[in-house]
Order: sequence, then C-alpha cells, then structure tokens
Amino acid sequence: MKIFIAGVDGYLGWTLAQYLAKRGHEVAGADNYMRRDWVAEMGSQSATPIRRMTERIEAFRETFGRNLRFFRGDLTNAAFVDEVFRTFRPDAIVHLGENPSAPYSMIDVHHAIFVHRNNLFGTLNILFCMRDICPQAHLVKLGTMGEYGTPNVDIPEGFFTIEYRGRTDTLPFPRQAGSWYHQTKVHDSNNVMMACRLWKLRSTDIMQGVVFGTRIDEMGDDERLLTRFDFDQCFGTAINRYCAQAVVGLPLTPYGKGHQRRGFLPLRDSMQCLTLAVENPPQAGEYRVFNQFEEVYDLTEVALKVQKIGKEVGLNVEVRNVENPRMEMEEHYYRPDHQHLPDLGYQPTHEMEKELRLTLSDLIRYRSRIQARLEALTPDIRWDGSRKPVEYLVGVDRGAGYNA
Amino acid sequence: MKIFIAGVDGYLGWTLAQYLAKRGHEVAGADNYMRRDWVAEMGSQSATPIRRMTERIEAFRETFGRNLRFFRGDLTNAAFVDEVFRTFRPDAIVHLGENPSAPYSMIDVHHAIFVHRNNLFGTLNILFCMRDICPQAHLVKLGTMGEYGTPNVDIPEGFFTIEYRGRTDTLPFPRQAGSWYHQTKVHDSNNVMMACRLWKLRSTDIMQGVVFGTRIDEMGDDERLLTRFDFDQCFGTAINRYCAQAVVGLPLTPYGKGHQRRGFLPLRDSMQCLTLAVENPPQAGEYRVFNQFEEVYDLTEVALKVQKIGKEVGLNVEVRNVENPRMEMEEHYYRPDHQHLPDLGYQPTHEMEKELRLTLSDLIRYRSRIQARLEALTPDIRWDGSRKPVEYLVGVDRGAGYNA
Repeated sequence: MKIFIAGVDGYLGWTLAQYLAKRGHEVAGADNYMRRDWVAEMGSQSATPIRRMTERIEAFRETFGRNLRFFRGDLTNAAFVDEVFRTFRPDAIVHLGENPSAPYSMIDVHHAIFVHRNNLFGTLNILFCMRDICPQAHLVKLGTMGEYGTPNVDIPEGFFTIEYRGRTDTLPFPRQAGSWYHQTKVHDSNNVMMACRLWKLRSTDIMQGVVFGTRIDEMGDDERLLTRFDFDQCFGTAINRYCAQAVVGLPLTPYGKGHQRRGFLPLRDSMQCLTLAVENPPQAGEYRVFNQFEEVYDLTEVALKVQKIGKEVGLNVEVRNVENPRMEMEEHYYRPDHQHLPDLGYQPTHEMEKELRLTLSDLIRYRSRIQARLEALTPDIRWDGSRKPVEYLVGVDRGAGYNA
Repeated sequence: MKIFIAGVDGYLGWTLAQYLAKRGHEVAGADNYMRRDWVAEMGSQSATPIRRMTERIEAFRETFGRNLRFFRGDLTNAAFVDEVFRTFRPDAIVHLGENPSAPYSMIDVHHAIFVHRNNLFGTLNILFCMRDICPQAHLVKLGTMGEYGTPNVDIPEGFFTIEYRGRTDTLPFPRQAGSWYHQTKVHDSNNVMMACRLWKLRSTDIMQGVVFGTRIDEMGDDERLLTRFDFDQCFGTAINRYCAQAVVGLPLTPYGKGHQRRGFLPLRDSMQCLTLAVENPPQAGEYRVFNQFEEVYDLTEVALKVQKIGKEVGLNVEVRNVENPRMEMEEHYYRPDHQHLPDLGYQPTHEMEKELRLTLSDLIRYRSRIQARLEALTPDIRWDGSRKPVEYLVGVDRGAGYNA
C-alpha cells in the first residue's frame, strides 16, 4: 500500500515509517520539525541522539532498500497538503502530525490557541484534500484515551447504545477532556466523524493510551534509525519520564495521590495496532473508533515497576509523589473497552517489565544527555495558569495492594 | 449590571444592547463589522437600511439617555480582549461575536478554517481574559440547537443521567452537528465547559433555535435603531428568508421534503431569554445549558404560516420545495426539552402569526432593497463542496396534517 505519514519526524511517526517499510509498504511522510522546536522551547532534548532528516533518510534507504519519500512542510498550509496528496496519491494517511502535549497547551492563551490552530487546521486540510483528491483513501487519525476523561461508567469504543426515556439510539460516547490539547483531539474526532458521514470518507480514529519504550526490532543497531525519546514535562509520557528519572538517580514522581488509572502500551504494540488499522480499512463512509492500549495500571503501580526493574539493572530508585500540577481526578473508576484491535488480530506483548529493561538499558547509554537537561524533569506548568515548580508531598498513603 | 456584548453590530447584538439599556443596564460592546463584509461577500445586503456604528451610537444615546461604550476590534486578538476587559470590567459577557452560518462554513476549506479560527479563538481569548481579569463575571455564550443534531431520543438541556452496564453517571449529551459552523459551536461548548470546571468560571451556554422577526418594541420608530435583517442563503434564517421571498413575489422554498423540525422563537423572545440568563447568573464553577426556543415546527408548517399571513396583507405567495443543498435528515424524531428558561420566568410570546405580520409589513417598506439582491435568495452552496443553484422539485408530497 501507499501510506502517507503526517508527522514522520516524531516519536511514533519515524518508528512507524520503518515498521511499515519492513512490511513492504511504500511510505511517504511530511514534517516541518516542529516537535524538535517545542522540546527545545521546554529547555530539553531527546534522550536518544536523533539525526537530521537527511541522515535519517539515508539510513532508511540502506536498511530497508527503499526511499522514504519526504515532504517538508506544514499541514496547516492547505496548498502544501494539496500538493503532497496530488503527488503521492496515498491509499492510507496516518495522521500523527499534531501537537501531543497537555501541559504545553495549558501554558497560556497563545499556546492554547497555537495547539488548536496546529491540530484542527491540519486535520481540516487533510479531510478536504481527501474529499477532493483521494476520497477512497483511509485516514488513520491519532486521538487519545484522554478524550473520554474519567466517567463513572464503562467507556465503549467511540459509540454506545442507550435507552433514554423509553427510546433507543446509538450515539457518540460523551467526551470530557481535561486540557486544551485533549479538547483539540475531541474537536478533531467530531470533525472527522462528520466528514465521514457527509463525504463518505473512511476513517479509523485511534484513542491511544500512554505509549512507552525506546525502540522496535526493525531499528536494528543503527543509531541513525533511533526514534526520539522525550522526558521533559510536556513531551515525555509518564513511564518514559519515570525511566529517565531512574537513570539519572532522581526519584520517580507520581502526581498527587498517584492513583490515576490509564491504559498503557509499548511502542512496538502501538506500531502493530496502527498497522492493523491501516491494513484493514473500514468501508466508505465508515467512521470507527479503536481504543488502543494493552493494560490498565495506575501511575503508582507503573512507578513501582520501573523501580523494581531499575534495581535489577543496578539503579537505586526512589518513588516520591509530588504536587499534581494538573487538575484531574486522582481516584476514579476506569474500565474502557478494547476489543476491536484484538478482533483484528492484535497480539499484545504482555511484557511491560521486559520492555522497561530494554528502555532503561538504552537510556543508561545516553544518561549524559538527560543529565544535561535535568531541570526539564521538574514540572512547573500548572492547570491554573501559574508557573511554579512542583514540590514533593509528604505522608502520601500509597494504599494497599501494590507490589513493587 | 455592567454587560459586555461581543458582536454588538449584529442582528442579535444590536437589538440586545437596546433591550438591556432600556432595563437600566450599563452596556458596552465590541465589533469589527465582519458580518457586514460576509453578507457583502454573499452578494447581499441587510433588507433593513442599517446605519454606521457612529450613527447608531448617536441614536442610542438620544433614545436611551446613556452612552453605548463601543470598542472596535477583533476578538481573535488576545490583546484586544484583554484591553476591553481591563477597561470595562464586565459583570456579564454576552458572546454573540461568532460567525453564525452553516453554508458559509461549507463553501471550501478556507471558509471552514476561517469559521473555526474566528469562533474558537475568540471564545478562547474571552475565557482566558475572564480567568485573569474578571473571574466572577458570567459568560452567556450563544450556541445553537443544531449542536445536538437530530438523535432518535429526547434532547435534554446539555446533560443527561444514564445507566450503562449497571452503572450510572450524568454526562454531557452527545453532539452530532451537521456543518463546520455547527461543529465550531460544539467545540466551543466543550471548551467553555472545561474552563468552568478547571477555573471555576460560570457560564450559561444557550442552545438557541431559529430566530425570526425584524424588531423589538424598544427600537420605537427611529429607523437608525433598526437591526439588520438578512435574507441571503448564508445569513438569513429560514423564516426570515421566507418573509423576504414573500415580499418580492418569489415562492417560499422549503429544502427537500421540508419536514425538518426545528425550534423557533421571535427576536423579542430571544432578547427576553438572554436577559433572563444574564440577570440570573449561575454559581462559580457552574456550566449550565439552556435550550432556547419557543415552539417546534417543521419547515413546511412555517412556510404555510408565512403564506397565510402574506395573503392577509395582500401578497400572492406560493410554496415550492427546492433541492436540499444540505445533507441532513428530512424526516426525523425531534423532542428537545426547554424548561430551564420558563423556570426562570420566560413568558413566551406564542404569537408567531402576529410577529410574521409585523415582519412582512416592515419588509414591504424595504422591498426595493431585497429586489436589488434577488440572486442572493437562491442557494448554491452545497454540502458536497460544489456550487450549483438549487432547482425546484416536482411532485413533493407534503403529507397530511398541514393547514395553511
């Protein structure tokens, strides 16, 4: 298949390009390197020493024996998307070209508006260009489990059938996002759903959980093929940040009570799932939602796992809760469905600990790159609009039932 | 109270400024006259001969004995909103400063993006400035009944309590909007709801039905106080367009089967309702939703009412269905709640026919202004992205149960 990856320079995008190429697909991608700039704005850098795109493309060709067709440009520019689609004529579009950070979007009004502009306008341009240039193509759009928030009922995959006052309908499950970033993903979901209904486009909307890990096997030992790995407060995911903290000898820092429950999956599983979506497109006009994660843990359980594996590899790791810079429920019901991907053949790795071992050993190699940006590990962006570094909490009762 | 009206030059905004001033409130407003430009872009003009803002302000002072504090500027400019709020320090903000047109947003990708930018960024700026400057103020935000779409169950006012797999929660009622414009209103609703939750702001989100009519009593006979009245395909509401068609001897044109059901209310009721919301603010942190309309009719019933009143005032009026340029359900269940406003004291006019008589007599006076823009009455913006004038349908069975 001809697959276009929007955001091919990113954590998932660069990895997916390799995973798909290895499976024989023809891959093109676009990026304008904004993720690199955002991380620099946070005073941070990727723990892995990522290369310029020119070098990446060279290594890609050497390893996979084919060209990565790269377009440099901004998805919010309609003329750019138009040109890319007319040139490449994709069968599938994997849209990873959005700003993925809740804290970044909460910094101030300018960041909130920037994230709206970047995420919504890019998706709108893709939808219009699909309609006009490649209406048979399949849009695989990256959303987030965070779109649903934490309701007090089970979370279905996108839609639920309910009875209300004696009548029945199947409706989109209500979204209750908790940051401007998460809201932009909700807005996108609504926009993509409507475009499928009105224009008979087809789309898989991925409500992805928290991804972690440094690598997939397809990267081999070529350092030029490594994907980025962020650990700053904005662009590092919870587990990845824990791993970075462990490697430089800082305590792992669950936010608040640390009982927030989330779905997690390793990078390699994310690749498997995205590829299953791409290779099994829906019907014309169909908008389907996949909840994409492997298992649900709370953020303390995960910290204790990193602590345990850290000890095995010789790291002395503490877990210390910090003030929660976010406003969110710290104890809540959480049971989201995730059956659509297993129905398509998803085989979960089920080995978080093995993945953590790999991740820590990769990061130990690049410890000095994290040490050079230590201050990026302390969050100071707060949901009330202030900027103040979080402090350690004392006397947090972890509760029963945790085994490190 | 000190009340700030965003979009004070518009159909509702200019009318509301007068209504509130008459009740003794201190009114300020902002506008950048964009509505005038959008209507010009559609090759149309207001049927009523509206004046420049300078003349409007002069007439306002003469009639209401007080100044209308006017700020010229664009709500998408954060610095402008900041300056206005710091200067005026409003107790309430009535946000009518959005682009209100579904067809306009469907023209092409540039219009879709423009409407997103204008509506979302303006609202975001208002929310951030409320947080930072006047967190006690009350935001009355204009949404639309169209946010809900046409589900097969009753439509509550914003939220519903449901049982799902044996557990219960109160959740936002799912939105299923049918145009980019309607989507922007959904996005705004989600954003305002979150800002209330996170920042303890207070807001009333108005899901308004279709408004019609030329005037309120407070305008008196001063032509300079007239509000605009649009009849073009983008900015004219269904009934207002029917009235304009009746006055120039063109058939009234329900779209498709003409059985789309909507909630309607006269301009004077919209003013009464908005004022009830303003004068009865919610608690800090409360986000409440009012479904604001008087009665539900289908678009054929309304056309037959205009035909009947038209005949009484000597107009020869036909009703002829045209192709539907939109994609929407033309026959559907529709029963939205609308109890919150009556609970606050809303006294509906219940006299659509009397209102239509007033409207037609006003429009007959300005018939030549409609005749000068006849081509604006024929829709050509279609939901599939094409531009082609709609044609009359033959053999539409109106069904039983309609009395003209």
